[in-house]
Amino acid sequence: MASLKLPEIVPSPTQDTERLRKAFQGLGTNEKELILVLGHRNAQQRKEIKETYQKLYNESLIDHLQSELSGDFRNAIILWTYDPSERDAKLAKEALKVKRKGIKQLQVLVEIACASSPNHLMAVRQAYCSLFDCSLEEDIIASVSQPLTKLLIGLVSSYRHDKVTVNLEVAKSEAEKLHEAVNNKKLDDDHVVWILCTRNVFQLRETFACYKQLYGHTFEEDIQNCGKGDLASLLNVVVWCIECPERHFAKVVRDSIVGIGTDEDSLNRAIVTRAEIDLSKARFEYANMYKSSIDDDVIGDTSGDYREFLLTLLGKGPKGD
Amino acid sequence: MASLKLPEIVPSPTQDTERLRKAFQGLGTNEKELILVLGHRNAQQRKEIKETYQKLYNESLIDHLQSELSGDFRNAIILWTYDPSERDAKLAKEALKVKRKGIKQLQVLVEIACASSPNHLMAVRQAYCSLFDCSLEEDIIASVSQPLTKLLIGLVSSYRHDKVTVNLEVAKSEAEKLHEAVNNKKLDDDHVVWILCTRNVFQLRETFACYKQLYGHTFEEDIQNCGKGDLASLLNVVVWCIECPERHFAKVVRDSIVGIGTDEDSLNRAIVTRAEIDLSKARFEYANMYKSSIDDDVIGDTSGDYREFLLTLLGKGPKGD
Repeated sequence: MASLKLPEIVPSPTQDTERLRKAFQGLGTNEKELILVLGHRNAQQRKEIKETYQKLYNESLIDHLQSELSGDFRNAIILWTYDPSERDAKLAKEALKVKRKGIKQLQVLVEIACASSPNHLMAVRQAYCSLFDCSLEEDIIASVSQPLTKLLIGLVSSYRHDKVTVNLEVAKSEAEKLHEAVNNKKLDDDHVVWILCTRNVFQLRETFACYKQLYGHTFEEDIQNCGKGDLASLLNVVVWCIECPERHFAKVVRDSIVGIGTDEDSLNRAIVTRAEIDLSKARFEYANMYKSSIDDDVIGDTSGDYREFLLTLLGKGPKGD
Repeated sequence: MASLKLPEIVPSPTQDTERLRKAFQGLGTNEKELILVLGHRNAQQRKEIKETYQKLYNESLIDHLQSELSGDFRNAIILWTYDPSERDAKLAKEALKVKRKGIKQLQVLVEIACASSPNHLMAVRQAYCSLFDCSLEEDIIASVSQPLTKLLIGLVSSYRHDKVTVNLEVAKSEAEKLHEAVNNKKLDDDHVVWILCTRNVFQLRETFACYKQLYGHTFEEDIQNCGKGDLASLLNVVVWCIECPERHFAKVVRDSIVGIGTDEDSLNRAIVTRAEIDLSKARFEYANMYKSSIDDDVIGDTSGDYREFLLTLLGKGPKGD
């Protein structure tokens, strides 16, 4: 369930564009207006606003946001204003650019590959090629080392069918294959990669359930017993993103907040990428998992327009009418 | 270069549809009219004709062709009338259904993966899921055995960027990796699969050229020295489809014709799938390679409406005005 709140009557893209233009004019930018407009429009509406802005003022809305705003608020609202496929292509590029990539970077790729719709993933790969003149897979091979490459290439190249079809026989037999790989401590076995990269998520959830039933532990627990390496950590993110993406994103928000300082990039990513998908569910999961309110925790760690924008995407406050 | 000939002024989909309807009426079908209309329309035009037919007569054009026609002519014209992505998804499914799959079946998958545009390949994967409630990759895993699976999964999951960008350093270093794999007789090495499945075709052509320059033989020749197994044969099809698809399809036509009898399925596939892409080039390659005319050879092995339809797609005769 999305957390994004749309007004009952959505203004035309021209009305929205004029309102945004006005917010940029005068002494200082009226950030509240930017939040009221952009923070209450879905991806298609934001796309139309961007196109109208370009047409009316011969200027890119993103460039204007870039030059008029600053800090975390700017980063968050720009991330939100990109087309979702372009946004995720850029997030993937940023993650791959980091020299010493850990699980924090690589999980961005897993999220795009396992917690998005198959058509969205295809659109991200297309956007990546257009933006960077190189495929996402080529960049993974060039910048990630084995045994992670194999799994990541498989994941980002997947096109799972998205109907709710489950075969119990397959679930049982593939749970056995996963277990065998775990027993042999061979987590990058071809069968593990194929199962995780080609089966639809409903089938995989059944396979994970079967695994628990057959062996008394979850696949996730057994992966952890295999070792603490990056491959085990990455596989755990895969399982989380497939089993219950809202739990994964609740964890991303939590991890970005706890400890000293805030990891704004992760916080932005979780809230911006899920506001139109399952951020309401993530809020429930957050409360269950951490006995704390996601809204309160965001309030505690952020301030000003940035805080208001994140809370808007979390579905707090008015509908933007 | 496409061989398909379009009329100077293309009639409206309604005019075409009415002409087709008339061709079905009366005593027997007027096959000449079907060829004159459908054999001179591109994929978009055929799509509009199909939609208009369905709208005007509440009947599927494909079903009508199916019930009114017979034999090889029917098979060829129906294959031509499908949407290209749906057609290739069906061709892949048919190839995978064969129990004892040899190179003849598996090369169909390589053609779709390596001799199509990246966007077409994505569309085929989408069509496959819609038509068969299962992904192409799942069917490959279920029905193809190792070491072919790994290469085929990589190929059909690829999304190569399609700009003409070539890096000479990369070509040299990857030619070395290919050579190392050949030397170790390890043709299913991860690096071989990644190189062939992620690089754009222009880069790969440079890599193959570099290989020849560095080692005095082509990669293709060295693959054959590795053994005569299915993997070597499949890799050769990959190299052909990437280096010069028109040569590959000239060979498919030739193989379908030489010997006793004709392999109409392969002949149809080569002519129908390439008529809008590079069948004119394939005709030149055919003449070069076999010192014979593709048109004459098709005439020699086919007859009646079937022959006329294939020759129409080969670009012989009038433009269909």
